[in-house]
Amino acid sequence: MSNIDMIRAAQSRLNGHARKTPLLSSPFLDDIAGRKIWVKAECLQHTGSFKFRGGWSAVSALSDIQRANGVIAFSSGNHAQGVALAAARHNTKAVIVMPSDAPKIKIENTRALGAEVVLFDRENQSRDDVAAEVNQNGKMTLIKPYDNEQVIAGQGTVGLEIAQQADENGIEQGEVLVCCGGGGLTSGIALALQDTAPNFTTRTCEPAEFDDVARSLMSGNIETNTRKSGSICDAIITPAPGEITFPIMQNLCGAGLVVSEDECLHAVALAYERLRIVVEPGGAAALAAALFHGDELNSENIIAVATGGNVDTDVFIQALQKFGAKS
Amino acid sequence: MSNIDMIRAAQSRLNGHARKTPLLSSPFLDDIAGRKIWVKAECLQHTGSFKFRGGWSAVSALSDIQRANGVIAFSSGNHAQGVALAAARHNTKAVIVMPSDAPKIKIENTRALGAEVVLFDRENQSRDDVAAEVNQNGKMTLIKPYDNEQVIAGQGTVGLEIAQQADENGIEQGEVLVCCGGGGLTSGIALALQDTAPNFTTRTCEPAEFDDVARSLMSGNIETNTRKSGSICDAIITPAPGEITFPIMQNLCGAGLVVSEDECLHAVALAYERLRIVVEPGGAAALAAALFHGDELNSENIIAVATGGNVDTDVFIQALQKFGAKS
Repeated sequence: MSNIDMIRAAQSRLNGHARKTPLLSSPFLDDIAGRKIWVKAECLQHTGSFKFRGGWSAVSALSDIQRANGVIAFSSGNHAQGVALAAARHNTKAVIVMPSDAPKIKIENTRALGAEVVLFDRENQSRDDVAAEVNQNGKMTLIKPYDNEQVIAGQGTVGLEIAQQADENGIEQGEVLVCCGGGGLTSGIALALQDTAPNFTTRTCEPAEFDDVARSLMSGNIETNTRKSGSICDAIITPAPGEITFPIMQNLCGAGLVVSEDECLHAVALAYERLRIVVEPGGAAALAAALFHGDELNSENIIAVATGGNVDTDVFIQALQKFGAKS
Repeated sequence: MSNIDMIRAAQSRLNGHARKTPLLSSPFLDDIAGRKIWVKAECLQHTGSFKFRGGWSAVSALSDIQRANGVIAFSSGNHAQGVALAAARHNTKAVIVMPSDAPKIKIENTRALGAEVVLFDRENQSRDDVAAEVNQNGKMTLIKPYDNEQVIAGQGTVGLEIAQQADENGIEQGEVLVCCGGGGLTSGIALALQDTAPNFTTRTCEPAEFDDVARSLMSGNIETNTRKSGSICDAIITPAPGEITFPIMQNLCGAGLVVSEDECLHAVALAYERLRIVVEPGGAAALAAALFHGDELNSENIIAVATGGNVDTDVFIQALQKFGAKS
């Protein structure tokens, strides 16, 4: 069962391989939010998202025989790249099953990192069925993107770093906002903070119409989204919270926050302008909530996790043109 | 005289105030360069450039009476913001003399950080004359952007961090490429590396037609640029190397590297895509040299300093449209 000991063990295995990403801030963002905002810049992680941590944690926890047989993963893109690079650095074969509407750059990057990519139609095919077909002899280890204890443990190392960096910055209490898809990162962070920084509350952030976790937290049951694709927040539009992650979030997280796509694009532009980091729309949902949903926040100190920076350039330009400072 | 002791003293004063910026890398950049590339991401420093270090170093070294009388600086933008924020955090008044063709966002940001901004025409007015007029009673302390020993000491803390991060990453030898205007950062880094990492050679990087430092290093005399403005690399188009900085560079640096504006824009796009950082064209000159001037490099390990990230959005979009990955 996922717990702090697994997260600490993952941190040991990640040491020297994952980056300790910086905690950034800007007085301009504080002014907009009317409170202190810090951004945990996981877009600066290897492969451009926190997913490298979970990928490394999972691959490094395999036995030698398992590694020799290779790994398989399904992913909208960031998990794909994280697993691909982690596998490559362990000399392990990786097959990644990706939705055909994932940003091209994520598909290309996954291939360039050495993985074999198999595409599927997100509206009409089950990714589990496709994955099972690829792995017909059953020897490859499936690394699920969030419902996997070693993946959750790897993502939880973000929480350990947040606890340490909050302490270094004299932040004694606050809310940690996390862009949430299936809940692997959120549940890992919540577990880590429960043990190391219990004055911090973890809260999920999702785009409107894909707010399965917020609704699940409210109802107490796993709720699903009606739509399955068609958001610029592609990284976090999973169909429902995970069976492992949901009970953890239900136990430890505050109410879920829901932001609009335009708020995410605005946050992308402000992160570019004020923090000089590249964040994808889905990775900016937490910053959007911090900046634009102050009436739903309960703390003067907000730490928003910028979860990823793998964005299609036309979407990024759209964000800058719509919300960037004019020359 | 500028030396390692002043740099170490500046590091103590900056401790807890300046960010220790990360050293980033990407296998995709290594592939382009055909060698290992690391990027010291000073665009993630407070105010978006290394200049905050020099500003803080200089303001924090003043006496109480000097601080009470305020500081004055002239700058194309990054030094302006660095001094403005450093002064504001010391409760010190700052007047910044800026060229009227500096990016608007830099002018606006300098004002928003609490400084008074005085504009001048770079082609027809001497910035020294303008500064003297503002400071008629002579009581304000002028903080020059590079020919100031405390400023050089502050910028030199980048070199101390590079030495430490190179050691942490197992990089034993190499070249450190620095985007160079007047030479404050370059000379500070060179002094720091001489003492703490003598296997590393510091080299300057400048845009074509503004290569005063490269020509000065070659001739052994301070050479000046014919043009004084009109480059997208506005941050580093100073007229000539400084009187304090040039002898240090002459003593410690390798031959200067000169890159094209298009190479800088290309490096901006690759830093966005592969490192997820926002770099301004002048701040990307070192990365451009690392990526595209391999035949002039002598090492398998290159550390390029990304000196700033305060870019006009239309220029940034131009870089992405011209050199970004196509969707």
